[in-house]
Amino acid sequence: MSSLIRFGISLEKTLLEAFDGLISDRGYTNRSEALRDLIRDELVRREWLSGEVVAGTITLVYDHHTRELNARLTDIQHKHHDVIIATQHIHLDHHNCLEVIVVQGTPQDIEKLSSRLKAARGVKHSALTMATTGKNLR
Amino acid sequence: MSSLIRFGISLEKTLLEAFDGLISDRGYTNRSEALRDLIRDELVRREWLSGEVVAGTITLVYDHHTRELNARLTDIQHKHHDVIIATQHIHLDHHNCLEVIVVQGTPQDIEKLSSRLKAARGVKHSALTMATTGKNLR
Amino acid sequence: MSSLIRFGISLEKTLLEAFDGLISDRGYTNRSEALRDLIRDELVRREWLSGEVVAGTITLVYDHHTRELNARLTDIQHKHHDVIIATQHIHLDHHNCLEVIVVQGTPQDIEKLSSRLKAARGVKHSALTMATTGKNLR
Amino acid sequence: MSSLIRFGISLEKTLLEAFDGLISDRGYTNRSEALRDLIRDELVRREWLSGEVVAGTITLVYDHHTRELNARLTDIQHKHHDVIIATQHIHLDHHNCLEVIVVQGTPQDIEKLSSRLKAARGVKHSALTMATTGKNLR
Repeated sequence: MSSLIRFGISLEKTLLEAFDGLISDRGYTNRSEALRDLIRDELVRREWLSGEVVAGTITLVYDHHTRELNARLTDIQHKHHDVIIATQHIHLDHHNCLEVIVVQGTPQDIEKLSSRLKAARGVKHSALTMATTGKNLR
Repeated sequence: MSSLIRFGISLEKTLLEAFDGLISDRGYTNRSEALRDLIRDELVRREWLSGEVVAGTITLVYDHHTRELNARLTDIQHKHHDVIIATQHIHLDHHNCLEVIVVQGTPQDIEKLSSRLKAARGVKHSALTMATTGKNLR
Repeated sequence: MSSLIRFGISLEKTLLEAFDGLISDRGYTNRSEALRDLIRDELVRREWLSGEVVAGTITLVYDHHTRELNARLTDIQHKHHDVIIATQHIHLDHHNCLEVIVVQGTPQDIEKLSSRLKAARGVKHSALTMATTGKNLR
Repeated sequence: MSSLIRFGISLEKTLLEAFDGLISDRGYTNRSEALRDLIRDELVRREWLSGEVVAGTITLVYDHHTRELNARLTDIQHKHHDVIIATQHIHLDHHNCLEVIVVQGTPQDIEKLSSRLKAARGVKHSALTMATTGKNLR
């Protein structure tokens, strides 16, 4: 972790009060940590637009009784194995599975994999979450 | 506008450098103003979740040749006149109109109006933008 | 408007019931119109990613008492006049103004203008809304 | 899985062509499956607004060298164990970990846990992904 730099900022009194209310609700213990989070969220959004290597997760919900869906999903994942780090499988109930695939690669490659999985017949829901490798957020 | 309060925050050196790059790209002249914007964006998102009176805009794109669409849109707007402040109409080309409706009210009432307009046959696109009355952001 | 094409789709019974509930709540009178809206929303998201000419709105909320803010906002708008179609100004209360700027151009040019306006000191909130010229959604 | 119901919809020719281009790019093999996905996405968004029990994932990126962060994150997760199904931990590099927490509960409870984790000092990025238990999407 890099060294800390301290600097001053100025905020309107009423804006600061509203911000203090917000961060207290969310469980922050100091303003610096809350501001760091706001800044890092902006930087992560930017990483995804810039085409840099990013990390993320793809969350799928599907009915594992759908004929040949398991084989199809495994097949798609193997074709894109270079962007997949790991997969976790949860049994939500008798029918429904939730699968989380942790990915790392360019936004384009990740989005391509995400589209292919979403398009598979029997996948009820698919969501791509943008995260970060953390390399630029030291 | 309320009085300014100055306080110190600390950021990791590499995070601060990334932030300085971001705000320079966006045309900010100082860090305080950029941080204020990040804070206010969070507060506005929260206003919309809390059910307070908010302001916003509804943007519609439609083909004014669609039979009776103008009458239908006017009719819907009149039924919800209590949340509508003003409407501006732009002629994009021979067929397409863009209409911006400035609204103020509870998120529920605004979303109801927005749904009704979007559902009208011939409306090609409709987007609801969350803004603020500014009252809590002095 | 182009000619209508009719085709069949198949949906699981429970999914169709949930969809019918959703569209009835939103005021749609038939399924085709609701499905058209879902499709057009996807196409508009894609236009903004593809770099085509799009339309949109920028919504600003600001305190017009902020010294020289009006002049600054006008100045920025004139520098980007080629993407601005029209501006509407609403007086929310004694302090707060809401301004809607209707824009048309490439996503890059529009986002640049949006960043510049947001960065101006005294602007409390700024939101960019993605809409469409409607040209590809006939 | 419930029985399939077939019905007809009508779309403007140019809109249908644009939609066919979109679904072919995304790897769909037929229109019904693409429309089902658009519908289910809307229904999932609605589940999260309605306060029903939903499923989701929380993705964290953090530097595991941060003093006591591991203990802090474990502590928070145990306090909210009733909404947590499972956690998966990935070593991105020497410093950075990515952790995916699969959750099930009301949106309010899930968002509370998500806020607490995000606020922990040393967490670089946190994202909450809305998914579904699949129960209403048969």
